[in-house]
Amino acid sequence: MSPEKTLSELGERALIALIDSVVGEPGVTLGIGDDTAALPTPGEGDLLATTDSLVQDVHFNLAEGSGRRVGEKALAVNLSDIAAMGGTPRWALVSLIAPPETPVAFVRELYLGLVSMARRFGVAIVGGNVSASPATLAVDVTLLGSAPSGQLVTRSGARLGDIIVVTGTLGRAAAERVLAVQGHEPGGTVSVPEPRISVGRSLAAAGLAHAMIDISDGLATDIHHLVEASSAGAVIYAADVPIDIAARKVGRQTSQNPLNFALFGGEDYELLFTMSEAQLPRAIEAAGDIPLAVIGTIVAPEYGVVLQDSGGVRTPLEAGGWEHFRRG
Amino acid sequence: MSPEKTLSELGERALIALIDSVVGEPGVTLGIGDDTAALPTPGEGDLLATTDSLVQDVHFNLAEGSGRRVGEKALAVNLSDIAAMGGTPRWALVSLIAPPETPVAFVRELYLGLVSMARRFGVAIVGGNVSASPATLAVDVTLLGSAPSGQLVTRSGARLGDIIVVTGTLGRAAAERVLAVQGHEPGGTVSVPEPRISVGRSLAAAGLAHAMIDISDGLATDIHHLVEASSAGAVIYAADVPIDIAARKVGRQTSQNPLNFALFGGEDYELLFTMSEAQLPRAIEAAGDIPLAVIGTIVAPEYGVVLQDSGGVRTPLEAGGWEHFRRG
Repeated sequence: MSPEKTLSELGERALIALIDSVVGEPGVTLGIGDDTAALPTPGEGDLLATTDSLVQDVHFNLAEGSGRRVGEKALAVNLSDIAAMGGTPRWALVSLIAPPETPVAFVRELYLGLVSMARRFGVAIVGGNVSASPATLAVDVTLLGSAPSGQLVTRSGARLGDIIVVTGTLGRAAAERVLAVQGHEPGGTVSVPEPRISVGRSLAAAGLAHAMIDISDGLATDIHHLVEASSAGAVIYAADVPIDIAARKVGRQTSQNPLNFALFGGEDYELLFTMSEAQLPRAIEAAGDIPLAVIGTIVAPEYGVVLQDSGGVRTPLEAGGWEHFRRG
Repeated sequence: MSPEKTLSELGERALIALIDSVVGEPGVTLGIGDDTAALPTPGEGDLLATTDSLVQDVHFNLAEGSGRRVGEKALAVNLSDIAAMGGTPRWALVSLIAPPETPVAFVRELYLGLVSMARRFGVAIVGGNVSASPATLAVDVTLLGSAPSGQLVTRSGARLGDIIVVTGTLGRAAAERVLAVQGHEPGGTVSVPEPRISVGRSLAAAGLAHAMIDISDGLATDIHHLVEASSAGAVIYAADVPIDIAARKVGRQTSQNPLNFALFGGEDYELLFTMSEAQLPRAIEAAGDIPLAVIGTIVAPEYGVVLQDSGGVRTPLEAGGWEHFRRG
C-alpha cells in the first residue's frame, strides 16, 4: 500500500474492511460491521453497545436553532441501532469535541436536545467527555442497552421464504436534503428520526422478527447488509415500497423519481425485518400505531438482491447510498 | 447568556458545570464529572463505562509514525480511568472521524495501536463507527469494564488522617511537551501512558484504597477533584512528590523547577489514592513492581489543599493544569 493513499481514494467500505481486518476479534456475538455489539453478561441476557457520531459540516451546521435537533438526532440514531436488535436502551455516554469559537448557546441546546430525547426513551446520560478541537465540532454518543436472554435479533437470521417488512415510510430525509441543497443550505436541515424502540422490542419479545436492521444507509444498502449476514437473497417489489408523502412532493417538484429517495436516500431510521408471512397479523398488532409494509421476499443467495417492477421485470438493486470519504 | 458567547470565553470548567446542570440525571452511582460511570446491574457487581477522545492538533498530529502511538494512547487513557475505579477492563467501542485527505497508513497504524493495547489488557474491541470529517481527525474510545460487588473505588471515600499515595513518577509527559514545543513540534510527541490496571485492581480487591483517581489533569488539579468529592482537605509534602527523572533533566536544561512539571503538567496517568497509614505495607505488596510514594495527608476541609515545603511552610496549592478551550 502506498503511504500516500488517502481515505477518499480508499472509500468507506474498504476502510471498514481494513479496520475489520486489523481488529478481527473473536469472542463476541457481534463485532464491527454490525451496528450494535451484543456482549455476553453471565445470567441475565445481553448487554448491547453501539456508537455513532454527528459531525459539523457533514451531518449538520451551526445554524441558529439547530443545536437542539443535533442533540436529539445524536441520541436518536443510536436508539435506532438498539431498536434494530430488539433491545431496551439504558445508558448513554456523550463525547463532545468543539472549537473554542463555538457559541455556548449551541452547546447548551445540543445537550438540551440529548436530555429531552433521553427522557422520552428512559435513557440515563451517565458519563461523557469534552475536548477542544481546532476546527470541527462533533458529538459522539455511545448507547448501552439490554435484551432479555434469547430475544436478541440480529441481521443474520433471515430464512428462505420470509417476507421482508418495513416500518413507516421511506425517503423523507433524502427529500429534505434535496430541498436544503436547492435552498443553498447543505447541512442546514437536521431531520430527527423517530426511533422505533417500542416496535423493535415488541417484535423481538414475541419472537416474530427473524432478522432486523435499521435503515440508516438507505433501503438498497441495508437490505444488502441484512441478506449478506443471512447468506440469502432478496426480491424487493418496487410498487410496495412505502414512499413518504414529502418525498413524493419533492419528486414532483424536482422531476425526480421519488422511489429513488426511498431506495437510496438513507437516514430514514425505519426498521427493516424479515418474518414468516403467517405471523403478519401478530406483527401488525405488535407494531401498534406504526404502519408496516410488506416490500419483498427472502430468496436463495444466488438471486442476489433484485428490484421487481409492477410488470414483473427484475433488475439488480445495487447497494448505494450515503458513502463517506468520497469527494467530488 | 449572550448568544455570541463562545466556549473559549466560558472555559472548560464552566462548560462542564453547564453540561452537568443541563444533564443532571439521578439514579446512577456516578455521573458526568467523575471520569467513569458505575452502572448498577442486578446481581453481579458494577458495570463501568468511560469515554475519552484524542483530537488532531490538540493531542497529536499526523506526523509519520505517530498513528500507532495515537491508537495506543486512545485506549490507554480510558484504561487509566477504569484502573482508578479498581475495575477490570472488558470491551471497547472506537469511533473515528477523519478527513478524506487522511493517509490510509495513519488510520491503519492507529487501529494497530488500539489492538495491541487492547490485547495487552484483555480488552475486546466490539464495535465502532467511522465518519467523514471536514478538517479534524479525532478518535473517541468508550471503554466498558466491571468491578465485583462492593469493590468499587470512587473519588469520594477519603477519610481524615488518610495518607495520600501516588504510583510511579510524575512530570514526564509535561517535560516531553516542553521539549516538543522547543523543537517546534507541538503535538509532535505522543506519550503513551502505562495504565495501572493491575495496581488499581489489587488495591480495590484488598479493600485498601479509600478514594482513588488517575492523574490526567495534573496532581494539583486531581487532588482537588478527590478532596472535593470527599469533602476533605489535603496537605501535599513538596519534597515527597516523586519527580520523574526526565522532568528533572528538562528542568535543568530549561531552568524550570521540575516540581512544577509534576504538580501541574498532567497526562501522567498514575494513580492517586488515599488509605490508612497502617496498611501501607500491604499496599506496597499489592503494587508489586510499581513504586508507591506517600506524598501527603488528608485533613479537614477547612484547610483546603496546601503544599508544604521542607521548612514546614504551607502555601495554597491551586488547581491548574491542562485547561481546554482557552486561547491566547
